[in-house]
Amino acid sequence: MATQQIDTQQDYVVPTKQQAVAHPLCPLSGEEISQASAIIRSSWPAHTDLRFKTITLNEPAKKEFVPYLDAEHAGQPLPKLDRKVFVAYYIRNTDRFHEAVVNLSNGKIEFNARLGANVHGNADYDEILQVEEKTLNNEQVKAAIAKLQLPKDAVVTCDPWIYGSDGNKDDDRLFQVFIYMRDPQNPNELDSNHYAFPLPITAVFDAASLEILSVDWLPTGADAEVRQPPTYTPVPANEYIGEYQTPRTDLKPLSVIQPEGASFTLTPVGTTGHTLEWQKWHMRIGFNQREGPILYDVRYDGRPLFYRVSLSDMNIPYADPRAPFHKKSAFDLGDAGAGAMANNLQLGCDCLGHIAYLDGTVSDDKGSPVLLENAICIHEQDGGIGWKHTNYRTGRAAVTRSRELVIQTIITVSNYEYILAYQFNTAAEFHYEVRATGILSTQPIDHSLDKVGVPFGTVVHPGVLAAHHQHIFSLRIDPMLDGSHANRLVYSEAHPMPLDPKLNASGHGYTVTETQVTESSGLDLAPQHNRIFKIQNTQSRNPINNQPAAYKIMAPPFQPILSHPSSYNFKRAEFADHAIYSRGGTGVRAWADRKDNVLDQDIVVWVQFGINHVPRIEDFPVMPCEVLKVMLKPVNFFERNPAGDVPMSEQRINNSTLVGGNHQQGAGVTTTVGDCCASDEEKPTSKL
Amino acid sequence: MATQQIDTQQDYVVPTKQQAVAHPLCPLSGEEISQASAIIRSSWPAHTDLRFKTITLNEPAKKEFVPYLDAEHAGQPLPKLDRKVFVAYYIRNTDRFHEAVVNLSNGKIEFNARLGANVHGNADYDEILQVEEKTLNNEQVKAAIAKLQLPKDAVVTCDPWIYGSDGNKDDDRLFQVFIYMRDPQNPNELDSNHYAFPLPITAVFDAASLEILSVDWLPTGADAEVRQPPTYTPVPANEYIGEYQTPRTDLKPLSVIQPEGASFTLTPVGTTGHTLEWQKWHMRIGFNQREGPILYDVRYDGRPLFYRVSLSDMNIPYADPRAPFHKKSAFDLGDAGAGAMANNLQLGCDCLGHIAYLDGTVSDDKGSPVLLENAICIHEQDGGIGWKHTNYRTGRAAVTRSRELVIQTIITVSNYEYILAYQFNTAAEFHYEVRATGILSTQPIDHSLDKVGVPFGTVVHPGVLAAHHQHIFSLRIDPMLDGSHANRLVYSEAHPMPLDPKLNASGHGYTVTETQVTESSGLDLAPQHNRIFKIQNTQSRNPINNQPAAYKIMAPPFQPILSHPSSYNFKRAEFADHAIYSRGGTGVRAWADRKDNVLDQDIVVWVQFGINHVPRIEDFPVMPCEVLKVMLKPVNFFERNPAGDVPMSEQRINNSTLVGGNHQQGAGVTTTVGDCCASDEEKPTSKL
Repeated sequence: MATQQIDTQQDYVVPTKQQAVAHPLCPLSGEEISQASAIIRSSWPAHTDLRFKTITLNEPAKKEFVPYLDAEHAGQPLPKLDRKVFVAYYIRNTDRFHEAVVNLSNGKIEFNARLGANVHGNADYDEILQVEEKTLNNEQVKAAIAKLQLPKDAVVTCDPWIYGSDGNKDDDRLFQVFIYMRDPQNPNELDSNHYAFPLPITAVFDAASLEILSVDWLPTGADAEVRQPPTYTPVPANEYIGEYQTPRTDLKPLSVIQPEGASFTLTPVGTTGHTLEWQKWHMRIGFNQREGPILYDVRYDGRPLFYRVSLSDMNIPYADPRAPFHKKSAFDLGDAGAGAMANNLQLGCDCLGHIAYLDGTVSDDKGSPVLLENAICIHEQDGGIGWKHTNYRTGRAAVTRSRELVIQTIITVSNYEYILAYQFNTAAEFHYEVRATGILSTQPIDHSLDKVGVPFGTVVHPGVLAAHHQHIFSLRIDPMLDGSHANRLVYSEAHPMPLDPKLNASGHGYTVTETQVTESSGLDLAPQHNRIFKIQNTQSRNPINNQPAAYKIMAPPFQPILSHPSSYNFKRAEFADHAIYSRGGTGVRAWADRKDNVLDQDIVVWVQFGINHVPRIEDFPVMPCEVLKVMLKPVNFFERNPAGDVPMSEQRINNSTLVGGNHQQGAGVTTTVGDCCASDEEKPTSKL
Repeated sequence: MATQQIDTQQDYVVPTKQQAVAHPLCPLSGEEISQASAIIRSSWPAHTDLRFKTITLNEPAKKEFVPYLDAEHAGQPLPKLDRKVFVAYYIRNTDRFHEAVVNLSNGKIEFNARLGANVHGNADYDEILQVEEKTLNNEQVKAAIAKLQLPKDAVVTCDPWIYGSDGNKDDDRLFQVFIYMRDPQNPNELDSNHYAFPLPITAVFDAASLEILSVDWLPTGADAEVRQPPTYTPVPANEYIGEYQTPRTDLKPLSVIQPEGASFTLTPVGTTGHTLEWQKWHMRIGFNQREGPILYDVRYDGRPLFYRVSLSDMNIPYADPRAPFHKKSAFDLGDAGAGAMANNLQLGCDCLGHIAYLDGTVSDDKGSPVLLENAICIHEQDGGIGWKHTNYRTGRAAVTRSRELVIQTIITVSNYEYILAYQFNTAAEFHYEVRATGILSTQPIDHSLDKVGVPFGTVVHPGVLAAHHQHIFSLRIDPMLDGSHANRLVYSEAHPMPLDPKLNASGHGYTVTETQVTESSGLDLAPQHNRIFKIQNTQSRNPINNQPAAYKIMAPPFQPILSHPSSYNFKRAEFADHAIYSRGGTGVRAWADRKDNVLDQDIVVWVQFGINHVPRIEDFPVMPCEVLKVMLKPVNFFERNPAGDVPMSEQRINNSTLVGGNHQQGAGVTTTVGDCCASDEEKPTSKL
């Protein structure tokens, strides 16, 4: 990696006035983004055209920030931390990719290096539109399209993909462009679902030269052979937008009403930061181009839980082994950015109830700020019954409802959508929920195979194949349980006790064992043993049972990446081969392989989860949400049920409505606090 | 099994007028329960005192009912089916347990047999109260309690348990009674949580002789040794009811408003039956003493899916290997009954929105009907975003919400609660949700172990141990996909393709295989292979891709029963050792072992799921709900996303409220159908 001399950079520094920053973790303001790009630009000879990929806060290192955090919560004087910016950029229309760190506090460039071969930047919006435009206007592409004899009004469109790798002449930064058309019967519909009309043509685009390197026919049979493409056979459209449906008319409105308003308090910090208080929870909300919303300094009832939580990346490798489909392996955060792709969320469309919205600010390719309006929404939702017990002797029922706080962002990655939500509840649980929806990435298949199929995909429409693919998410959790940065990862398992004439003659006994993770490593789930991973602070003991303060990680069943360990998919997806990764540093597989000691160290835990998406025809033209949840729950962290103080669920608060008349309701309807749900009729009917 | 002569029974028949029954699957009316018990009583010499355990509908066999069902939906004349009742009863205060079938249509007893040794009936409410009363008044018990030198105002109470088995002198029908006291500082509180005050005394009660067979000290150490019990050391109370909490005051009300009412139509059938129509779903709702709510004839958009669905049973084996705890292994449906234990659900306490309630009718121990008011509640709930896609080229977003219909019952089994819900949604999915809550079954532990613990339980309060235990549920599914009773169970798995220079040189390819289940058997989950079980009708093919109409079963990760295969726990829990059981008949492990051919037969599938509950101190005094879901989803059953016709999510319908002012909302707020959520600001901000 050839690093440019830092010293020589100093000549190019643009003087900048010291910024007063509200908090070191506030996202960059538009002004800061402009300053950073100006400083980088100034480090190059005049008229050097730069393409900026990322301009985002360079967060203070933990060792610098922890003293600030401690002082902040102790109400003591705050140490001064320089404001730094991470910048990734190209010399425009070249392969010369740089990373830099700009110190806005002194206007200096602290680091500025050209990265080596095979290190590529993310795509950006303007670039994608440029690739589309150049591809569709390319003569070779037009000639290929002409061979298909499409209907005369057909409108062709395309989806550029960041090129995956098989190590075969793909060192340069390339795009694979898949070509589609809109419904030829309705070519003026800008929102026609073109995924129902994939064309058997693909182009490879060089991001440096902006040239099309090749135009190829796609394999459309059951094997890798590329045949002379058949001329287009008409198929029906398969639209998802409202005006092409006959909407069901019997779904009556359902609204969420919060007569006293929302229960959360959102406090702006400077122009870009926010803290959030809700039901004993405290956290700071950040946002960047790559990760989207980030949570810092998450506390419950004043007790620290997590230093930082974010979605680290995701990988979507596809099952079709044939070129060029074998290169479909998206990294939606690294290739594009969960912040950059955030939807503009609209009131009453994406959530119910009382909703707050936060904007985000990212950089465009020219280094100018772009405001992402309503990139994050925050609201509460009812979580169903939180806990209930009925005393069968007295018939008295005590019941509470669970309330959840949702911090949500929705990202569009070309065809797909991901609904990403941090969720907190009144039982001191933290959940991370992903809803996968959107449209399948499709490819053409010969009509002769419509009713035969192939083992690596599903026919979802005549002539349309949706290949199987895995969605593998990596959730990064940096814990600080009860204020300690020396945390321990363990896993417990339940195993039968050996038959023993004295202690276990019946063979009914079982015990729970606990195993310490002492080295950085990749670990797997084992539901057959009820394996549960826990993060512990062994210095903080439960006053009643002396167990270490802990949060357990409940991750959904996970099939690790299926790509061969020798493959480029496997090499590139450094997190995708184990459900749990742990180490005391800042990375994943390679770092874990260092076998660092992690016992009671400053660990970070990456939780991998996902789905192997074997498409159903029901997933087309747009798929019903597939919901995944990682849950972190306290284990011997509190002294009793932390939801024990949630007020009883009562009709005078809930205002529910009775449907149908021939019905008896007991005393519970007119209620006294703490005795909501007991009924005069209860005793004879509440049996056992 | 000695069966009494049927013929001789005829002499005892009580003449009864033919009943006009609205539908053969309507639950028994109170009058029918009384008739059945009268007919059984009449078959015995006068003054024979019978104790009735169950009087419930004896459902017509499938081979008799299917022609009725077909005629019903074809609008053809209905075959006449006799109305029959299943009765289980004892000669009171003996071990003589009988099962009988009474034909109400002709007033005859068709079957009446005394069952053999080790076949015991369920407990009933009056019996449990009787066991409590006799135990607490027993002189031996009182003498043992006196030894503990409890505070003078202490009020002692107890929990009777159906005795488990280790094959050691436990052939008789016995109860194990665990003894507790209320908070001695507050002995008049009828709803004091006595599980915080377990006493080291247990009694064994004979249900036939109504005698206490033994009174024993419990082991309270780390081993099986029973020491001289220490005198009582005061510990604080740990109450769950509202008046003993300091409720949080900042949780603001959240109500669900349905201005046009509920979207479902509930139609009474006779005096006890109901059909339910909602969002293309159709089903018939039944109810009985053992299973609680039962669903029959479940259809979507007129297409048959399930002939019958119910919770078959659950098993809760405990981990403590020491006598008498090793006998704690509850079968909450078989031992007690999900219908008999149904809570009286109260408006605004157990659900939000527009709620309908259904009553249930069961028999008491004298053969008289008992009305269980509000045993079932039915309501809709919002399911979050159903699907969404944003076209990044136009910025236009299309988004819908998922709506769910919930048919819920809540059962109290002594200390525990289970919230059992059939859930249907607008994407043609059927979910079965269980929420486990309530209070842990506790036992005393020496204070010297409070901070040391034992490997088979968790200390949840000073001197209080909650033993680990498994909750293993068995969901019974009798499918009739697309009208066929010849269904196939298969499972698919995803496996890497072998490296192959021609087809899979990259090592990125993988395929999905499908395996047929040809013999009745017990099968396990294999998430590492993405194993997915599917029920198929191979005679009904998808018109587009020719795949068989199928529903897949998505079951949560499951640890089978940990009790040794030679143990009585294992022998008794015939379903608990595999996640999936399948056969062409009416039973589980023993039947599966028959290896019947089940390929394209009239199969039944039992789905086992559950949790290994390793108690946290956070689960006391009442546990936050642990939520489990089995999901059945269509796979190539429809031709496209069945939720494609759900109306767009729009502010004019949802009426959400904006929190905070400094905020931009785009065109989406004022909306046109089908274009809810696009914003004027969308384009520049919706990247990639």
